[in-house]
Amino acid sequence: MATQEEALPNQPEGIEGGLRKRLTVAGNVETAATECAEEAVDGPNSELDSDDDHSSLVEPKVEVLSSLPQGTDHTPHVLACLLPDLPPRWRNWVIRGVFTWLMIGFFCLIIWVGPLALMATTLVVQVWCFKEIINIGYTVYRMHGLPWFRSLSWWFLITSNYFFYGESLVADYFGVIFSKSALLRWSISYHRFISFFMYIIGFVWFVLSLKKRYYMRQFSLFAWTHVALLIVVTQSYLIIINIFQGMIWFIVPVSMIIINDVMAYMFGFFFGKTPLIQLSPKKTWEGFIGGGISTVILGMLMSYVMCQFSFFTCPVEYSEAADSLNFYCEPPPPAFVLTEYSLPPSLARISCMMGGSESFLMYPFVFHSVALSLFSSVIGPFGGFFASGFKRAFKIKDFGDVIPGHGGMMDRFDCQFLMATFVNVYIWSFISEVSPQKLLQKVYLMKPDQQLQMFNLLQESLLSRGILQP
Amino acid sequence: MATQEEALPNQPEGIEGGLRKRLTVAGNVETAATECAEEAVDGPNSELDSDDDHSSLVEPKVEVLSSLPQGTDHTPHVLACLLPDLPPRWRNWVIRGVFTWLMIGFFCLIIWVGPLALMATTLVVQVWCFKEIINIGYTVYRMHGLPWFRSLSWWFLITSNYFFYGESLVADYFGVIFSKSALLRWSISYHRFISFFMYIIGFVWFVLSLKKRYYMRQFSLFAWTHVALLIVVTQSYLIIINIFQGMIWFIVPVSMIIINDVMAYMFGFFFGKTPLIQLSPKKTWEGFIGGGISTVILGMLMSYVMCQFSFFTCPVEYSEAADSLNFYCEPPPPAFVLTEYSLPPSLARISCMMGGSESFLMYPFVFHSVALSLFSSVIGPFGGFFASGFKRAFKIKDFGDVIPGHGGMMDRFDCQFLMATFVNVYIWSFISEVSPQKLLQKVYLMKPDQQLQMFNLLQESLLSRGILQP
Repeated sequence: MATQEEALPNQPEGIEGGLRKRLTVAGNVETAATECAEEAVDGPNSELDSDDDHSSLVEPKVEVLSSLPQGTDHTPHVLACLLPDLPPRWRNWVIRGVFTWLMIGFFCLIIWVGPLALMATTLVVQVWCFKEIINIGYTVYRMHGLPWFRSLSWWFLITSNYFFYGESLVADYFGVIFSKSALLRWSISYHRFISFFMYIIGFVWFVLSLKKRYYMRQFSLFAWTHVALLIVVTQSYLIIINIFQGMIWFIVPVSMIIINDVMAYMFGFFFGKTPLIQLSPKKTWEGFIGGGISTVILGMLMSYVMCQFSFFTCPVEYSEAADSLNFYCEPPPPAFVLTEYSLPPSLARISCMMGGSESFLMYPFVFHSVALSLFSSVIGPFGGFFASGFKRAFKIKDFGDVIPGHGGMMDRFDCQFLMATFVNVYIWSFISEVSPQKLLQKVYLMKPDQQLQMFNLLQESLLSRGILQP
Repeated sequence: MATQEEALPNQPEGIEGGLRKRLTVAGNVETAATECAEEAVDGPNSELDSDDDHSSLVEPKVEVLSSLPQGTDHTPHVLACLLPDLPPRWRNWVIRGVFTWLMIGFFCLIIWVGPLALMATTLVVQVWCFKEIINIGYTVYRMHGLPWFRSLSWWFLITSNYFFYGESLVADYFGVIFSKSALLRWSISYHRFISFFMYIIGFVWFVLSLKKRYYMRQFSLFAWTHVALLIVVTQSYLIIINIFQGMIWFIVPVSMIIINDVMAYMFGFFFGKTPLIQLSPKKTWEGFIGGGISTVILGMLMSYVMCQFSFFTCPVEYSEAADSLNFYCEPPPPAFVLTEYSLPPSLARISCMMGGSESFLMYPFVFHSVALSLFSSVIGPFGGFFASGFKRAFKIKDFGDVIPGHGGMMDRFDCQFLMATFVNVYIWSFISEVSPQKLLQKVYLMKPDQQLQMFNLLQESLLSRGILQP
């Protein structure tokens, strides 16, 4: 999203000064590097190893910028040989296109393998994004002499992953497995205590690593690490929770962001005239609106097709009988059952006149998909604006260079995180109810006599309210 | 904890240079102000309204430091009149003593009023601490021209409070009340959705408020706000959860931090020789160890006394019969029931020889209190080191000036937050079990036919496992 780059052909070059030009014109990284060098020479004198913690703390220096991975100029050797004569701008386009299709293909392959592969991929992406954010902090604050910072960040990453994945995932979805063994039940009971002590170890370690001349940078990076955890770990955890609800809750939202990206680019390229926001000067209102409408339509079509396959729609559940993950279900969850809807009166009259029916059959999920596409095309771009504002604040072009033509993982997944949170909240609020099955998982974790006590209390209450007949 | 100030009489003054001296010698604020002014004059030239976002971003300037509330020099008018002839150092001591006792008195008064007053006080302290942290960020980054920053911070504070307090507090403890009305049930069902949209409003608002020359500061303060929320809101929420378990879970840990503070100071004053940590040069190993041992002993005594009053030990629960909060219980929770413990063999033999018994009666909570006091005296001080490192990083003396002689709220409550998290995890892991009563609150939030389905599934499972006899 952040590298959406809707074309705005009428805008004169250089209107916003060197910085903006440098940041938005793709493929001109050589120019950028030169400009940075010039700026640094003109800028305040650099005291890289100044004793004063407060002096010019966050001014990127030449070596800083050049040591940050600068995304899209990274050409794989094979492609460089195949495209020797293309001008850099076009070469970048080709590379970008090739890798877009490679990513989509890889994405399909993962889906074909199944939900566990999808979850593993999410974890890898999470770790990679964390690494990119931490790297930027590390470089921006020039912490090369800083004691322990990297190890600490990774320690906090491990701690928070352990906490989140153990917390509700295991208890909610694999309660049955864990209730079988005393050791596993122990690991659930003390999971929060272990996580907390892992965190405390990191905290004490941080305090002990404080060194006089680095105080302010160390605290800044401590905060930086925690914000990165908040963005990356919590939200990737929500992605995995979504996958458990059925792969469609992952595939449709992810595709919507991609569709909105591509369609907004296309509409902007052909019809774009009115600039949308100062922050991303290449985005236009035409692209924003055209992209939004296309996302709603294509999203509905896509949802309609996918609703027919239980591989996509069934919740991923552990089947005790088969002793493996089970993702076929009968009947499917209510959102994926064809339901009769009556047309609004005016439309019903027209339909009658044409010999049609007054109602139609549809999957409820198709209507839910409208809410998802509206979010992905109205609020989603703000995730992109946020990321591009962030990159501009720290004068970096991309978060990394792992995907040729695209930049870093975070450049591709910035909006996906926000979207995943929305989907999670949406499912929680409108789709999943506290199901008897899920609550039972928690009942089974209690001692047998407590389970019996619960049974008696429930029986009593149901009888007194007349729900259960004696 | 941060202002614990264990005396280390042998340490020569000024050994660590002006900054350290300024920060640790209480009552010398006049000197501090002069030094700050000198430093600023000697320091790099200040361009307060520089267009370049990156220049000297976080260097505190004279006006910055003087506009930050500088804690302990704030003397209430009444006391200033009563103590006209005392030298500043001693006047500060008297003020500090007076307000320590005033705070302890106020604390007792609140406890006497009951748990709801305690929770309300926690909320007020939370908001105050948040305000102090945000104020420091605001001043350090010189954001006086920054659009919307303060309103945004408060918006995020409201949003996160709404999220946390609605989330599990209401559902877990007041489920019965909420299940009575359709509107209230609705507000629980969509609580997460509403919170998320409140957050999204703040997020979009932030992106729209981004202004070119402020990018980096705006992002820094966005992160600053989120870290403040993480520290203050989540942890004060945990405090309230603890109070629900019984007021003893609040009073004992809070008192332990205070006891450890005072006793470490006393031991340090009389026996302190060996410096403990570079970060807080006035703390000594003697104070650390003496404080720890005293905390364990006094904590056990205090726990033993309090265990006898159900006002302290009973969980705060909503009683449907009385339609009010109920904090008397019969029998008390297991941790507060006198239990017979057998002495270890060697001790038992000695006891027998002296005509005593081989076992003794004790409240299990007294043993739990040892774990709490060990945490409060071993890990607790690190909360203080963290806070004093933070204050030193941003060259401030105190977080605020609301409590004369003590500084800001955060100066008094820094360790309390960490302690509350520990207590919460401790209760979760070792004390509270998923109780049938609590799980039932969740069952009652389902629709009647789902409750019936749950009942049938549970009956089936209990029968098949032979726990329930047909």
